Amino acid sequence: MRRPGPSPLLLPALFAALLLIGAGCAARRPDAPRLLPVQDAGAYHGLPGEALLMSPEVQAVAWSDFLARHFDPWGRTQPEYPADKVFWGLTTFADKRLYGENLLPRDPAWLAAMTAASRVDEYPSLSRRAIAVANTAMRVLPTGKPAFDDPRQAGEGFPFDYLQNSLVLAGTPLYASHESADRAWVLVESRFAYGWVRRTDIAWVDDDFARTFRTGAFAAVVRDGVSLTDTDGVFRFKGFIGTLLPVAERAKSAGDGSLTVMVPARDVLGRAVVRFAQIAPGDALPAPLAPTPDNFAMLANRMLGEPYGWGGLYMDRDCSATTMDLMAAFGIFLPRNSSQQAKLGWVEPLDGESDAAKKARLLKGSVPFLTLVRKPGHIMFYIGSMDGEPVVLQTIWGLKTRRGGVEGRALIGRTVISTLEPGENLRDLARPDGVLLHSVRSFNTLP
Amino acid sequence: MRRPGPSPLLLPALFAALLLIGAGCAARRPDAPRLLPVQDAGAYHGLPGEALLMSPEVQAVAWSDFLARHFDPWGRTQPEYPADKVFWGLTTFADKRLYGENLLPRDPAWLAAMTAASRVDEYPSLSRRAIAVANTAMRVLPTGKPAFDDPRQAGEGFPFDYLQNSLVLAGTPLYASHESADRAWVLVESRFAYGWVRRTDIAWVDDDFARTFRTGAFAAVVRDGVSLTDTDGVFRFKGFIGTLLPVAERAKSAGDGSLTVMVPARDVLGRAVVRFAQIAPGDALPAPLAPTPDNFAMLANRMLGEPYGWGGLYMDRDCSATTMDLMAAFGIFLPRNSSQQAKLGWVEPLDGESDAAKKARLLKGSVPFLTLVRKPGHIMFYIGSMDGEPVVLQTIWGLKTRRGGVEGRALIGRTVISTLEPGENLRDLARPDGVLLHSVRSFNTLP
Repeated sequence: MRRPGPSPLLLPALFAALLLIGAGCAARRPDAPRLLPVQDAGAYHGLPGEALLMSPEVQAVAWSDFLARHFDPWGRTQPEYPADKVFWGLTTFADKRLYGENLLPRDPAWLAAMTAASRVDEYPSLSRRAIAVANTAMRVLPTGKPAFDDPRQAGEGFPFDYLQNSLVLAGTPLYASHESADRAWVLVESRFAYGWVRRTDIAWVDDDFARTFRTGAFAAVVRDGVSLTDTDGVFRFKGFIGTLLPVAERAKSAGDGSLTVMVPARDVLGRAVVRFAQIAPGDALPAPLAPTPDNFAMLANRMLGEPYGWGGLYMDRDCSATTMDLMAAFGIFLPRNSSQQAKLGWVEPLDGESDAAKKARLLKGSVPFLTLVRKPGHIMFYIGSMDGEPVVLQTIWGLKTRRGGVEGRALIGRTVISTLEPGENLRDLARPDGVLLHSVRSFNTLP
Repeated sequence: MRRPGPSPLLLPALFAALLLIGAGCAARRPDAPRLLPVQDAGAYHGLPGEALLMSPEVQAVAWSDFLARHFDPWGRTQPEYPADKVFWGLTTFADKRLYGENLLPRDPAWLAAMTAASRVDEYPSLSRRAIAVANTAMRVLPTGKPAFDDPRQAGEGFPFDYLQNSLVLAGTPLYASHESADRAWVLVESRFAYGWVRRTDIAWVDDDFARTFRTGAFAAVVRDGVSLTDTDGVFRFKGFIGTLLPVAERAKSAGDGSLTVMVPARDVLGRAVVRFAQIAPGDALPAPLAPTPDNFAMLANRMLGEPYGWGGLYMDRDCSATTMDLMAAFGIFLPRNSSQQAKLGWVEPLDGESDAAKKARLLKGSVPFLTLVRKPGHIMFYIGSMDGEPVVLQTIWGLKTRRGGVEGRALIGRTVISTLEPGENLRDLARPDGVLLHSVRSFNTLP
């Protein structure tokens, strides 16, 4: 006997139930992606903890290059980047619908106002040395307001503000090339990126300050959120892994492990002045740190679990900030952008390789803590292996999921240790494109 | 003949189609709520544009009260608020699941760290006069990081950071009562609210500064985003409607309509110093402004269309910031909280009234621009009537919708003019609870 299917009377109930399921989709959270149970960056490298991953000679060259790049903005007399580079946002966003802080489309007049504020025709209007006196946002346009892509799309909307370029850590030397019409924003170039920063978060640098600040001996902050209060008791800013500050000559003999550093401050006329701050033992070390697995793991472990911060929002890190900041403490230069980072050092392309071949080549050709693994738009630290699987440390927003043809994200949202196939436990993981390994394109070993 | 209903073969297709509809729910945007076509705050009051809505005597009393409250923090020698008030967030959030900037639940350790940072047992640890030298966020806890409610719920997640209390405009006198453990945050009391502000955005006020700054003559900024650059060319901050600054004595005779004002700045030791800035004609007026419909409408029209900013995020306004800032230019004090605002002046309760009766009482008993209309958690300006309908100006996030039993929001997300029944055109408007008029509880006429 043929069963007749659901009776017509059942259909309204079915519809209502499905609407509920459907409406609940925004509330559906996939199971959390499975990560490695041991979240310890020192557990996978299999090397002596004190081994030097670079020779002192190689590190010395890297550090010298780092410092040259760090202070290079102070040597400029004209901008390094032409107008089409520094104003790229104005042209790129002209064809896009941008969404504002109210999650509604921005009026085209908004971008027109940004164009006027950018004074494109008058670029460059400044040529001054400067320094960040606060941890400050580097923006694509001269505004603190956000520009999101369509917030209804997976992986868009908050926190993906496409105007947020980077965090600029306090103490970073800058070259100021331009000023916004409202004078609230200054276009600057730094070691790792360029963009607009708040006028009140930088100070002008004169010869005297530049000479004093470039002592030749630097301290690397080795813990996130270290409060820096000067010798007059005035709070200046917080130090993070990635913060580099000159060591004050007079403190070299302290001996208890504390370091006295120079911190830049801003006087009432907006000029940089040197202040001094003492950093407690263990919160900073002479830079660059010895390139040992123990030191890399110590810093990496202090980043583990910290929330993801697109472009440095909320002073959190995204994928490429994690790699840049960690490497900086060891004196190795990385630019801010993940695809640029992947071009440095010894690059091994993996295009066209099978997943198994990628793993084999990674395991064979990588150096824990010195190898970066790239997929388009993302970068990870190779930190060793487990049971024949490459292990990476990464700051990641989430994994692509797909259900009923609709894309979503299984959130990770922090700095974690995983294989290259996290989320294999997820029923909805987009396969194969949601599997990290599948999209890995190359790896490169620094410096 | 009885039709057998959909065949079993059709069901998978039906499911797939409904899943698509379901998954699309996050992408479904209701039609935009209908507002009044004439977005001009001067079009509804029906009064002579130059009429005085308050007598000079009444306004003088209000202004004197405003100034007393504005500077009252500088007269304090101990905090006005006890520990259970200023640390309310620590107890309130202890029972709640908070979501972080990565849209994932915060670990309970996070609130424990906030408790330690707040140094509750040592409150009050400071007693100093201060002033805001930047437009700065007033926070419930000493952190710039957010705490959202469940982002999957309608009207939650970004931008509803429950730690964002208010924007504090530059130039606001403060009483500093406490410091965070990391010294980055100071607990302050102001004319309108209390909370934590960034240490670097305030400066200490001494007798000399206090005496100089309290000239007795003040300018009200009457346009949002007026750049204030001092006489040495140093950008200080932006002025907004609601910004009040002392007029410099020496400038009284300028005559061209420009005003020279005092702007507070911070010296290298964190002390407040007076600087001077000239404001172009039309960007500021002597405070308080004459309480005429034309003046109210001029300021209100400059706020129209501006995006909604929860707690002053991105220097935008929410409902109660709009009412507070607009009234401030006319010398009328309002606290920051909408329910507190609704208790001032001549209050007329509307509980238990029918919608028709509410309208009739509003039309009869309101004064355009001086009457506030309250529903729980929201406040609006009464600005007149059209075709027998009360007309309000309000900054509003959205209207509650309901579909298939699931709550949503029809976004407005800005400052608009509407009747008390906007969104009547929406098929999904939650009825009756999504109709503003239905929830209106009282109105009150200032001062």
